[in-house]
Amino acid sequence: MLLVVLDLIGITAFAASGALAGVRARLDVFGIVVLGATTALGGGVLRDVLLGINPPTSLVDWRYLVTPVVVSLLVFRFHPRVSRLRRSVLILDALGMGLFSTYGAATALSHDAGVVAACVIGMTTAIGGGALRDVLLNEVPIVLRREIYAVAALAGATVLVAADAAGVPQGLAALLGSVLATGLRLLAMWRHWNAPVPR
Amino acid sequence: MLLVVLDLIGITAFAASGALAGVRARLDVFGIVVLGATTALGGGVLRDVLLGINPPTSLVDWRYLVTPVVVSLLVFRFHPRVSRLRRSVLILDALGMGLFSTYGAATALSHDAGVVAACVIGMTTAIGGGALRDVLLNEVPIVLRREIYAVAALAGATVLVAADAAGVPQGLAALLGSVLATGLRLLAMWRHWNAPVPR
Amino acid sequence: MLLVVLDLIGITAFAASGALAGVRARLDVFGIVVLGATTALGGGVLRDVLLGINPPTSLVDWRYLVTPVVVSLLVFRFHPRVSRLRRSVLILDALGMGLFSTYGAATALSHDAGVVAACVIGMTTAIGGGALRDVLLNEVPIVLRREIYAVAALAGATVLVAADAAGVPQGLAALLGSVLATGLRLLAMWRHWNAPVPR
Repeated sequence: MLLVVLDLIGITAFAASGALAGVRARLDVFGIVVLGATTALGGGVLRDVLLGINPPTSLVDWRYLVTPVVVSLLVFRFHPRVSRLRRSVLILDALGMGLFSTYGAATALSHDAGVVAACVIGMTTAIGGGALRDVLLNEVPIVLRREIYAVAALAGATVLVAADAAGVPQGLAALLGSVLATGLRLLAMWRHWNAPVPR
Repeated sequence: MLLVVLDLIGITAFAASGALAGVRARLDVFGIVVLGATTALGGGVLRDVLLGINPPTSLVDWRYLVTPVVVSLLVFRFHPRVSRLRRSVLILDALGMGLFSTYGAATALSHDAGVVAACVIGMTTAIGGGALRDVLLNEVPIVLRREIYAVAALAGATVLVAADAAGVPQGLAALLGSVLATGLRLLAMWRHWNAPVPR
Repeated sequence: MLLVVLDLIGITAFAASGALAGVRARLDVFGIVVLGATTALGGGVLRDVLLGINPPTSLVDWRYLVTPVVVSLLVFRFHPRVSRLRRSVLILDALGMGLFSTYGAATALSHDAGVVAACVIGMTTAIGGGALRDVLLNEVPIVLRREIYAVAALAGATVLVAADAAGVPQGLAALLGSVLATGLRLLAMWRHWNAPVPR
């Protein structure tokens, strides 16, 4: 139950990040809803395709569809001033990324995917929706840019897998991993941590 | 049988739209064939991956492969003047979109996907090939641009699902939904219907 | 066993091509690793998704993950002068493409995919990773550009399928097909073979 709530919060955060990116790109209301829903559900659909869950959970349950549509419409109507949008997209994206890293890993474990695959699929769930959003807008995805991103997602998924193996209750493990992943990402943004670049 | 014919017409329309887009982008004959085939088969492959149909139907049946290759070669040889290409791509795309929205939804229903998933998968089938075409050419996909597109695809899929639930024969339901989706899209293009944009 | 070795060589070549492309695009070390791993594993993941192998082999076996990470880090540290990078990316890409075309086709055959699907899935395995790499970097994929690419991949896969049907041992068939595909591609690059372009 806690996991489902975390999943819906992650969907809300990613839908808002996708819809705000659509506002920034001057899409119309339909384009904004499509982009918001794709960003919100893309990671989970990718996860289910990799795990062989057919059709993907988020396309079967109408609540998973209505949530990003409503969030995107709210963003369209009440979005803040354009100058502040870039930062808001990044913060909401960090929140969704952290939540999806543990939720994706937990789903993989519950489908007997093995610990290595659970870590990788958790990371993929966390970075997939944002990567789709950026590719659709013709931008180089955030996950490749000069900030800590995929590493944070992998850390969150790994914490969940390790804690699960150690017998920690899954709700607590998810909370720990999500806080770590989102926190790492926000810290990297805030402190302008830079990874080395090629000579 | 009617459904298979509609499917092949949809493949033909999307192959022509992809090949014409390739001509516009000055690809060579091989690039044009690859782009035409990807546009034509992409939506169906996506549909089958979401439904767990492995390997996807269109990769197993050689007729599904030969059709877009032949269409792309014909487009390469006999394409109209470049100045008229943009409009032709859009009209063929609208035709393929309408046909795939109902065909995708019908396939989903016949694989017990549930009514919500059938609507969404029908829409995805209809918009997937065109989105792939645009992403490969580094353009913001038509489905996000300032015209009615995803909504028309969703309407077509929903009509098929509703008519099927009401006991309408599936061939008739597919025809109704396809005409609605394609007609809505063409009307929106012709009358320059614009959805609201952000403040 | 020979097939697994060929697969790992293909992963190494594609990881290096992806990491070098990341160096060229001035990504940082994390972005380079993500891009190298995506290029190396993308084709195989696509193949497994199309065949219904869940979760994909390369996400389960840690050796398939460690290889591209190590290769990408080595490229990051020891990459040659930037002026020579474009050619190196293309040569390594040709090597990976040839190896994956036969490995993908052989995997498809061993999952009862039928000869047509085996040819197409072999080609898709060979071109998928490079296409992902280029799309993520906002470039029109190599497979659409003015050089022989998809045709070479299809030739390699077809040779494997035909040789397998004729009773040739699979290791030999894979070698023949890979040499043909990579050789065809390198020849086309070296001799500047150009396919016809639209009028």
